[in-house]
Amino acid sequence: MKLANALTYSHTLLSQTVERGNYVIDATVGNGHDTEFLSQLVGPKGHVLGFDVQAAAITATAQRLAEAQLNNTELILAGHENVEQYLPVNQSVGGAIFNLGYLPGADKDVITHGATTLAAINGILPHLKRNGLLVLVVYYGHPGGQDEVNQLLTFAQALPQKEYHVLQYQFINQVNQPPYIIAIQKRV
Amino acid sequence: MKLANALTYSHTLLSQTVERGNYVIDATVGNGHDTEFLSQLVGPKGHVLGFDVQAAAITATAQRLAEAQLNNTELILAGHENVEQYLPVNQSVGGAIFNLGYLPGADKDVITHGATTLAAINGILPHLKRNGLLVLVVYYGHPGGQDEVNQLLTFAQALPQKEYHVLQYQFINQVNQPPYIIAIQKRV
Repeated sequence: MKLANALTYSHTLLSQTVERGNYVIDATVGNGHDTEFLSQLVGPKGHVLGFDVQAAAITATAQRLAEAQLNNTELILAGHENVEQYLPVNQSVGGAIFNLGYLPGADKDVITHGATTLAAINGILPHLKRNGLLVLVVYYGHPGGQDEVNQLLTFAQALPQKEYHVLQYQFINQVNQPPYIIAIQKRV
Repeated sequence: MKLANALTYSHTLLSQTVERGNYVIDATVGNGHDTEFLSQLVGPKGHVLGFDVQAAAITATAQRLAEAQLNNTELILAGHENVEQYLPVNQSVGGAIFNLGYLPGADKDVITHGATTLAAINGILPHLKRNGLLVLVVYYGHPGGQDEVNQLLTFAQALPQKEYHVLQYQFINQVNQPPYIIAIQKRV
């Protein structure tokens, strides 16, 4: 079997940690690929909260979910930095995914940024269940990408070891800066 | 489920890639934990070639394998840099594992070194089958450990992308320098 690329491995990690019925978050809906995956993963009694700043992404994903007859998802046309506005105060979260960088195939000027990404992560972490997982799939080959990565790494490396495990999964001999994973798991 | 530590994940990776009947290598037999794992993984028609520079490690592992009634293993009391002497010229290799650093519980003055480790890796890589995997579990918290790591990383990052995938799997927020994984998979 081939070593899993970052996208595949992000799904493997979430499959291993998220449980049916969980409340989960797709912080960057984009083409809806992850949203649909999460929706199926948590099942009809689970709930997916999805964010995107692009109306086209929300519309296309809503249609995709309707076609797949999945109706456990709430799509929000807003930046993920507003997550606390939409997440019920006492809601525990089983998993979350961020695809950081830009939406493949769409406007490359619309990218995520370190400050808003960190605001979203900080909004979600206190809600994570024990063993709950927040997965960042980091694309950084675009202008501004390296800045975002550096901010994220600095933040993630400083997370207290007693409360979180932080895993980095990365191919290190590739020329074209393939995406990599930072996964944050709540320990307590 | 909890995120797998490096030791557990090294076995997961080998389980996903090595097939029954394969010829595999334990480059650092140590306490025989990996040797036994590989022996069971490849089964009675497979073959495990194991190296250690410490006679005590070879003796204890031979006994461990005998108790488990595993007899598909060849244990060599020599450094793994001699691998080419023992590996048949046209022998293809399904997997290999290195535990780099020192043997837990034994003499901490006996450590692996970058030069001999690289000699062993260079001896094995040409034998790797397509999708065959060489896994390095890197302990680097001891004196000299960081030097070995730096040599390995420089080597691994320079492996040609068309021939190899090189994966790094590492916890990045831990104080006590836990071991991490560098996994090299042959692509062609």
